[in-house]
Amino acid sequence: MSNRPQLATTYAELNAASAELLREAAGKHHAGHTSQGLVPTMGGLHAGHAALATAARQANDVVIATIFVNPLQFGDAADLERYPRTLDADLDLLGSCGVDIVFAPAVEEVYPGGEPMVRVASGPLGGKLEGASRPGHFDGALTVVAKLLHYGMPPIPADYRAYFGKKDAQQLALVKRMAADLNFPVEIIGVPIVRDEDGLALSSRNRFLSAEEREAALVLSRSLRYLKEQADRHEPLDIEGALAMVKSARLVELDYLEVVDPVTLEPLAFNCQDTPFTGEALALIAAKVGPVRLIDNVDLG
Amino acid sequence: MSNRPQLATTYAELNAASAELLREAAGKHHAGHTSQGLVPTMGGLHAGHAALATAARQANDVVIATIFVNPLQFGDAADLERYPRTLDADLDLLGSCGVDIVFAPAVEEVYPGGEPMVRVASGPLGGKLEGASRPGHFDGALTVVAKLLHYGMPPIPADYRAYFGKKDAQQLALVKRMAADLNFPVEIIGVPIVRDEDGLALSSRNRFLSAEEREAALVLSRSLRYLKEQADRHEPLDIEGALAMVKSARLVELDYLEVVDPVTLEPLAFNCQDTPFTGEALALIAAKVGPVRLIDNVDLG
Repeated sequence: MSNRPQLATTYAELNAASAELLREAAGKHHAGHTSQGLVPTMGGLHAGHAALATAARQANDVVIATIFVNPLQFGDAADLERYPRTLDADLDLLGSCGVDIVFAPAVEEVYPGGEPMVRVASGPLGGKLEGASRPGHFDGALTVVAKLLHYGMPPIPADYRAYFGKKDAQQLALVKRMAADLNFPVEIIGVPIVRDEDGLALSSRNRFLSAEEREAALVLSRSLRYLKEQADRHEPLDIEGALAMVKSARLVELDYLEVVDPVTLEPLAFNCQDTPFTGEALALIAAKVGPVRLIDNVDLG
Repeated sequence: MSNRPQLATTYAELNAASAELLREAAGKHHAGHTSQGLVPTMGGLHAGHAALATAARQANDVVIATIFVNPLQFGDAADLERYPRTLDADLDLLGSCGVDIVFAPAVEEVYPGGEPMVRVASGPLGGKLEGASRPGHFDGALTVVAKLLHYGMPPIPADYRAYFGKKDAQQLALVKRMAADLNFPVEIIGVPIVRDEDGLALSSRNRFLSAEEREAALVLSRSLRYLKEQADRHEPLDIEGALAMVKSARLVELDYLEVVDPVTLEPLAFNCQDTPFTGEALALIAAKVGPVRLIDNVDLG
């Protein structure tokens, strides 16, 4: 049986708990050199989040997970309302991954003066792909990530790492970019996508799929795998073929399927015999399956 | 004779120098509790900056001043080009104030990948007053301040304070707002305006005034003093009278003269007999005197 993590609901509690655990860890090390890992989540946790927590656990002395459903990144009040809140189960899951501290603040703790006036602007990288479908989403997401990265900073000297899922490829690219552009003293680490046995990428939204929709949703990972196999064989990518695969699927309404540079998310073009795939690239897909918007991606590098 | 500060041009040098000095300071204190003060500047230093450095020196074990002319906050390339660069004199001045380390990075150190993609957005507070005359100015200023606040963070546990002049009242309000809204682990401290004997607020732009313009520019501080005297007597403020004073001055083209809340910079109205002034307020003025845009303000609280 796993221990439950310590629960902190204020920054002061978080900071005190982290300082104590880091001091303990420093006492055990001969060199006194410690590290802290932060795993920001919005709760509604599944095995994908467990992979983040486990990666953080393996590399750090102290692991903090945060659970905060950030109103700023929801354009739609109904979407915010519907977002799953499962704190008890989340604490169990994080405990089983060895997380030390869970920081689960109320909205008033994070935004004491109401909505923040000064925010992070995600710029052109935040306006395309997911940002085109969800205006303002990444500004809201980066603003709360900036706050959480500050909350989670080690109060005594320690390496500092923060863990984000590769499933949200655009968010990961933007968080890395923000950390670099604004010089946050943290290393941003991307953790591989976790999939169900049938290939569907785990998402807290999958629970809203009917059995039929879920079956239909498999075309997302199938089309990406199709491209991945070509990349692995260093063949030109048949993006048209992948697109046709998705467009012919029932219940699936494609938003985008693009092969992009993993850092800038700028589209790359190698859909011809002259340019067999060699470099680094991500294939990104977004589609509505029934009422549920899903995203997935695969690293072609 | 004062010692010259250590000069650091890279973040690594800054960090190493600060860690060494903080460790020395911790060794001297019985409690081992230390503090670091950061004084961000754009160089072209005068006695106003000296007041920032002196305030930081009085309150902290280690004092860092930064000198960086931030291209991001200049809308106009000619204005950026004209901005005074006087590193040798600046180092002397900062040394005489007891600054330990001067961080004077090249543009490439601060923006290694060119202009940052993810930035700080100053929001509605950044769009009015100075922001209305200088679109994008505060987004650029806050973006570099966010970077500098991260650069200047103590590498070993220490209190952390950053010093900004009250002369740039809107910048100070925005930096405080950013620190709160994005949870920067730093205390932002405003330092009173330094004036010449005739009342003119010190500014690196004053050097561009002719003798005649300089004389004309005194109407800015005179109009503010007029309001301040009324506030001190708890009388209603004669803003119309102050406006008339400025508008009748030769060579002076008023941009704005407003009495505002010191936190939100929202205009306050008490220019009538029914509401003698009691609370907290700032009177802000901006005007072009000849070719030179000047700002000034006075605390009416």
